[in-house]
Amino acid sequence: MDSNTPTAQEVDETLKRLSSRKGVKAVVILNNEGQAIRSTLDETLTKQYGQLISTLVQQARTTVNTLDDQNDVTFMRVRTKKHEIMIAPDREYLLIVVQNPQESIQQ
Amino acid sequence: MDSNTPTAQEVDETLKRLSSRKGVKAVVILNNEGQAIRSTLDETLTKQYGQLISTLVQQARTTVNTLDDQNDVTFMRVRTKKHEIMIAPDREYLLIVVQNPQESIQQ
Repeated sequence: MDSNTPTAQEVDETLKRLSSRKGVKAVVILNNEGQAIRSTLDETLTKQYGQLISTLVQQARTTVNTLDDQNDVTFMRVRTKKHEIMIAPDREYLLIVVQNPQESIQQ
Repeated sequence: MDSNTPTAQEVDETLKRLSSRKGVKAVVILNNEGQAIRSTLDETLTKQYGQLISTLVQQARTTVNTLDDQNDVTFMRVRTKKHEIMIAPDREYLLIVVQNPQESIQQ
């Protein structure tokens, strides 16, 4: 791991900070192989989110790289009828936050 | 077409209104079969955006429906290093707007 790789403690702090924000329903952190390394969800849901969101991010990257091979995805927001899924791909990790936008705005 | 279906004129007005906004680089409107019915891009790029974005939206819908079959995608934002792709799936159409977020904020 190079010096830019967040420590386990930093990952935990990120999870705690995000999951305590108003309106946040779930936080899942995946490694680059799509395996969950932290999650506020149960094992089954965590695995499901991990597989589905990894595939979606890969599809988004293919889309962006095909249109311009010098470009890449930096953030994704999928708004749904019930909530909002925010996805932040990073070099080492993939951060997924599910929130209820109405609640988080009232903060 | 039922009464909710926008007329050709309404579609044109939407295209003109969106493409005249500061920071907007492209507007593509697809029908439900993924064919472009309006576009500010050339034919090749329009076709490419149409195919790639339709596939991405389908992947996002699969993701959301698998997690909760009562839920669906209402809007997507894909932020990239160079610009932002906003995707609004509707009953009849799929609206794609590519913008440079820095420029559009300064409005």
